[in-house]
Amino acid sequence: MSELVEEFAIPQTMKAWVLGDPDELLFTEKPVPVPGAAEVLVRIDAVAVCATDLEVISHGPPALIEGGLPFNKNFTPGHEYMGTVVQLGPNVDEFGVGERIAVEIHAGCGRCKRCREGMYTSCHNYGMNYGEHDKGHRANGYTTDGGFAEYAVNNVNTLARVPDSVGDAEATLIVTAGTATYGLDVLGGLVAGQSVVVTGGGPIGLMAVNVAKALGAAPVILSDIEDNRLEIGRELGADITLNARKVDVVKTVREVTGGPGCDYVMECSGAPNALNEAAAMVSRGGRICLAAFAAQPATFDAARLVMDNIYMFGIRGEGKSAVRRAAALLGQGRINPKPIHTHTFPLGEVPTAIRYAREKIDGAIKVVVQIRED
Amino acid sequence: MSELVEEFAIPQTMKAWVLGDPDELLFTEKPVPVPGAAEVLVRIDAVAVCATDLEVISHGPPALIEGGLPFNKNFTPGHEYMGTVVQLGPNVDEFGVGERIAVEIHAGCGRCKRCREGMYTSCHNYGMNYGEHDKGHRANGYTTDGGFAEYAVNNVNTLARVPDSVGDAEATLIVTAGTATYGLDVLGGLVAGQSVVVTGGGPIGLMAVNVAKALGAAPVILSDIEDNRLEIGRELGADITLNARKVDVVKTVREVTGGPGCDYVMECSGAPNALNEAAAMVSRGGRICLAAFAAQPATFDAARLVMDNIYMFGIRGEGKSAVRRAAALLGQGRINPKPIHTHTFPLGEVPTAIRYAREKIDGAIKVVVQIRED
Amino acid sequence: MSELVEEFAIPQTMKAWVLGDPDELLFTEKPVPVPGAAEVLVRIDAVAVCATDLEVISHGPPALIEGGLPFNKNFTPGHEYMGTVVQLGPNVDEFGVGERIAVEIHAGCGRCKRCREGMYTSCHNYGMNYGEHDKGHRANGYTTDGGFAEYAVNNVNTLARVPDSVGDAEATLIVTAGTATYGLDVLGGLVAGQSVVVTGGGPIGLMAVNVAKALGAAPVILSDIEDNRLEIGRELGADITLNARKVDVVKTVREVTGGPGCDYVMECSGAPNALNEAAAMVSRGGRICLAAFAAQPATFDAARLVMDNIYMFGIRGEGKSAVRRAAALLGQGRINPKPIHTHTFPLGEVPTAIRYAREKIDGAIKVVVQIRED
Amino acid sequence: MSELVEEFAIPQTMKAWVLGDPDELLFTEKPVPVPGAAEVLVRIDAVAVCATDLEVISHGPPALIEGGLPFNKNFTPGHEYMGTVVQLGPNVDEFGVGERIAVEIHAGCGRCKRCREGMYTSCHNYGMNYGEHDKGHRANGYTTDGGFAEYAVNNVNTLARVPDSVGDAEATLIVTAGTATYGLDVLGGLVAGQSVVVTGGGPIGLMAVNVAKALGAAPVILSDIEDNRLEIGRELGADITLNARKVDVVKTVREVTGGPGCDYVMECSGAPNALNEAAAMVSRGGRICLAAFAAQPATFDAARLVMDNIYMFGIRGEGKSAVRRAAALLGQGRINPKPIHTHTFPLGEVPTAIRYAREKIDGAIKVVVQIRED
Repeated sequence: MSELVEEFAIPQTMKAWVLGDPDELLFTEKPVPVPGAAEVLVRIDAVAVCATDLEVISHGPPALIEGGLPFNKNFTPGHEYMGTVVQLGPNVDEFGVGERIAVEIHAGCGRCKRCREGMYTSCHNYGMNYGEHDKGHRANGYTTDGGFAEYAVNNVNTLARVPDSVGDAEATLIVTAGTATYGLDVLGGLVAGQSVVVTGGGPIGLMAVNVAKALGAAPVILSDIEDNRLEIGRELGADITLNARKVDVVKTVREVTGGPGCDYVMECSGAPNALNEAAAMVSRGGRICLAAFAAQPATFDAARLVMDNIYMFGIRGEGKSAVRRAAALLGQGRINPKPIHTHTFPLGEVPTAIRYAREKIDGAIKVVVQIRED
Repeated sequence: MSELVEEFAIPQTMKAWVLGDPDELLFTEKPVPVPGAAEVLVRIDAVAVCATDLEVISHGPPALIEGGLPFNKNFTPGHEYMGTVVQLGPNVDEFGVGERIAVEIHAGCGRCKRCREGMYTSCHNYGMNYGEHDKGHRANGYTTDGGFAEYAVNNVNTLARVPDSVGDAEATLIVTAGTATYGLDVLGGLVAGQSVVVTGGGPIGLMAVNVAKALGAAPVILSDIEDNRLEIGRELGADITLNARKVDVVKTVREVTGGPGCDYVMECSGAPNALNEAAAMVSRGGRICLAAFAAQPATFDAARLVMDNIYMFGIRGEGKSAVRRAAALLGQGRINPKPIHTHTFPLGEVPTAIRYAREKIDGAIKVVVQIRED
Repeated sequence: MSELVEEFAIPQTMKAWVLGDPDELLFTEKPVPVPGAAEVLVRIDAVAVCATDLEVISHGPPALIEGGLPFNKNFTPGHEYMGTVVQLGPNVDEFGVGERIAVEIHAGCGRCKRCREGMYTSCHNYGMNYGEHDKGHRANGYTTDGGFAEYAVNNVNTLARVPDSVGDAEATLIVTAGTATYGLDVLGGLVAGQSVVVTGGGPIGLMAVNVAKALGAAPVILSDIEDNRLEIGRELGADITLNARKVDVVKTVREVTGGPGCDYVMECSGAPNALNEAAAMVSRGGRICLAAFAAQPATFDAARLVMDNIYMFGIRGEGKSAVRRAAALLGQGRINPKPIHTHTFPLGEVPTAIRYAREKIDGAIKVVVQIRED
Repeated sequence: MSELVEEFAIPQTMKAWVLGDPDELLFTEKPVPVPGAAEVLVRIDAVAVCATDLEVISHGPPALIEGGLPFNKNFTPGHEYMGTVVQLGPNVDEFGVGERIAVEIHAGCGRCKRCREGMYTSCHNYGMNYGEHDKGHRANGYTTDGGFAEYAVNNVNTLARVPDSVGDAEATLIVTAGTATYGLDVLGGLVAGQSVVVTGGGPIGLMAVNVAKALGAAPVILSDIEDNRLEIGRELGADITLNARKVDVVKTVREVTGGPGCDYVMECSGAPNALNEAAAMVSRGGRICLAAFAAQPATFDAARLVMDNIYMFGIRGEGKSAVRRAAALLGQGRINPKPIHTHTFPLGEVPTAIRYAREKIDGAIKVVVQIRED
């Protein structure tokens, strides 16, 4: 097994991108981190760019961090990465050296009210992983160093095995599928035979179409304002696609679902009128999952939630082990994120990758940074 | 048993208030209705005025009725009534003649998707109780004749026994307590030891304080803008009361609950900024129940629901047999709606009762129409 | 449309099998029943034989019926049937004449505690559908006339549309798939990526394998004592099959699921030691669904449920609209009951069909009575 | 604050009882342990004797421990203790020095499947808290040193604040109330107005009566075979008490709950026929919680669970933060464990205390070892 050992010889330092001032990324050399208890060292093989990365790079993480904003602190962003376990922290046997894994963002503290309830993505000690305030919470690429680098340390709770049949670039999208899976779990769990409308054909929305279809939802309806997104939606299983610039989505949904409206809405657009439309297209007693951040507060008619007993679930990240479930669906060939992977760049070109993602250059949906060859 | 029979001799006609034009109530004589299958005839002994009655009288019911608006159709509003079972429909043995009962609003159709799920207040056949569209749904005082009258027919599903220890006027408030109980069930069920903030000290809000306290929630916090409401809130069990005109409610809630915010919010105010404040005072992973109709759409920052994994539950009516549960709590002396009952009028003065309720004359909270002596 | 009308000309009488003494079936002529409110008349096109039919024919239904045992009362058994809607009761518009439908067993009364909770297969008025005790409950082929006949009346709640792609014989198995779906819903809902062991490869067990696999469970493990059943299990998606006569099932399950045991067990064998083995193979905090009737009380070590926080769910029938969800999965080609359909007979040969099912002649699993040509 | 510091001067060694051979307890001197991350040092003020302690002392803990049986390993049993926080581990700020706390048994590992689901009492790493297998799981008095000593280290997750109004001896029973609260949460959460039968009037059963009553269950029925237990049950809120030696409990329960049976059974007796009787007295669609270990496997008719869609929940320990909720109910005066506290001994007399508990000498129910004066 000497070859195996050799393969995972771990260097002292690594290449990594770090945040300078807001919107400034610097390519640098950092020490390779050392895994502690319940942690492993991951050699990062590929990392995708998420819309939230753009926020972190511009404004810092969405939730308060103990220790302030991450600028000019040698902080490496990036959370949609996958790689290979190359070193185990003390007492770790849940994963072995050499295993390919994808990562989810949150390792809860394990000691707050929410973690004790199993809601680890809602950890009350978010950001508490520095010095005397270290409560053990980690959010990869948000409050701890992330994936635009050659190596990263990860809590075992954030790891999901990558099935052999799944390539590296594709595996970076498991976490996106995990968010979609979490949303469908919160909405209904066993959604087979129930109508699901996904509003917004970004990566999470498209994966929501794909997972909903895999779980037997019927019909699966996607709305967006761009035809190319709708086309990918059809490829991923949407039974009906609606261009919101061309048709009245609410009216059409109510027609095709037979009157009272659909069972579930996964809101993935963040559009200003999205909540009102979701509430108008879901049937009395139906449920809405909010998986997208609206850029701005917007006018909302909440009375309809009361009048029609509608539940609205904001979801943060990928709770309920959804990433591991999504990995299983991917390994079985039931979901297929490939169509949303549009561009690939090497590690040295992270800023370009980010620009493609931010400006949607050349129809970019998911831009992947491939750090090593498959 | 001839006396018993005599006591419940049922007349051919009865006195009843009916809707004329919007905001017009006429005192008239109507036939006493006859109970069908799964129904009983109730002699109404007392009926309270609910804010929704005012809406019905001015604009019609909040959900679409098959058959259009109820004006000038000999329709009797009023849904918060209690009385005595005086006649049984065919095959009814769930209740007996002579039993005192309170009523909840909704009898679901029993055949739509929601009724099959147990969500009978979200019945998809709401309003479908006329002629060839009769699917069996009933909403007392909304789509079928209600309680501003001497008699009403009720589906057995809408009946809750009134404990002997509870007077007639008080018993009209069981349904209000039921809405509060439904909300707390949806929020958490076993809320003992968890923090509950009730925003808005109207009848439902005050009963939410009372039920939350009875179930062991701690602390129970009430906010309102009127000191007399807060005083009643304290009487009903609020540990902390906050006058929203004098203190920063969000800040104070976060302080007294120890930082991350409270576990649950029951939003009972319908105030324009209520949703934003609820989302700001509930802790990450917390839950909000919407039990009040906002008069107008308002600006809402939904991103916080996503960022903090907050669930928001609109509730319609009194689902999950909450009225029967509330009746039990009342019978055990664990809740006490008496402080919210402020005024009493006889049947002949329904318009005055409604005026008191609408204009909050003389500090009116719950105005009860007492049809018979206890 | 006169042809359509002609096609469904409804005769006055029909051929039907009725129960004489226990275990005696008589072929007779009965009046075609007339659908009442919330009912349709179904022309039966095919009906499968279920193990429970054998019980009903020998001993009467498993739950108490008002009115006593069904022998010599002109009662027609059979509940796994499908057919065509040929007449609508008053105010029915949920289904149309000419639609192909499969049926589930239970139409709850809609007025007991359980029906109000959405648990219609646990209706407290089971059997209450006769004369003055008629509370509206129906259990097709148990307490009301069933499917070994040319026509039957059905409550709309019991109907599930048959997808066009599904043949008549196959459609009789939707209800079996529905029981499996109900069990998986109760166990976990979104079971993707979780380990499911099915003990017992009868029709429900085999469909449980099929549905679990369709929903992404991994691994799906089947145990039985007959190799031909295991082979069909593999065809339907079992990743691992275990012959309980040849291997130690508990030990193997714990090995292949990595130590602590599996997530879920669907117990479909009714074997004497089934509960002990289920409790021994499920991991701490895991769940067991009981879908098979044990023939006899057996020795059970319940302490393990307490020690390991195991939940055990007995399921009756096909709750939570599981039949409609199973129909959707079938229409999407995600499940495939064909391999369990082994034999076909015409209506005149019901006793032979029943004998094949009872004695498992010629490897019989599901025996279908095909009443009309597809 | 020098006095405060002085008060909690921590000695190097402490008095403690340790296990020798099975059933042998030795009084010894041990080093005072030092709290690690997420831990505090508790000065134990009182500790109650639980039936499970007797098992541990005789046979070792009920679940497998890494490292084998605890005999002759200097191991201190005892898990129902309360005390005062006297020292904080690194980064602990959830509790402060000087706070009075009760403890629950389990601190989950935080990294297994169950802990990630919030089911920390079902931790898959039970017993894994030694050396290279240390995964962070702790079970006070089962796998780590417990409460028959002057000091113990506790994970912050196991602590619940003791309300000021509650004395030390009484506070040792919070954990018992917590088990009862957990059971009622699993059964139904908001059990107000629903019928609960508790079978077995031991400490957990009696506290289940008390908690069920506090939450508004009605009626609350207790069965036992000893009249003095039933009398305490009445004192704690049982509406109906049944001596199983004198009346047919199943028949009586069905009568007083109106026919179909009760909603919930908390089985706290461990009697040989307890499961059959629970299944016979619960109504169709009802739920049973198993909170007692049966001494022996027994004959069980599981078919009734299937026939009547009954769910049976084994519960281990005090999940879902039930101990903190029970502490809140106690602080509000809604529950009152005092009547079950029958005997008190000093630390030097632990063997006597255990003998009283084991042999139920002098009507012993809960025997408390009071280590310090209140």
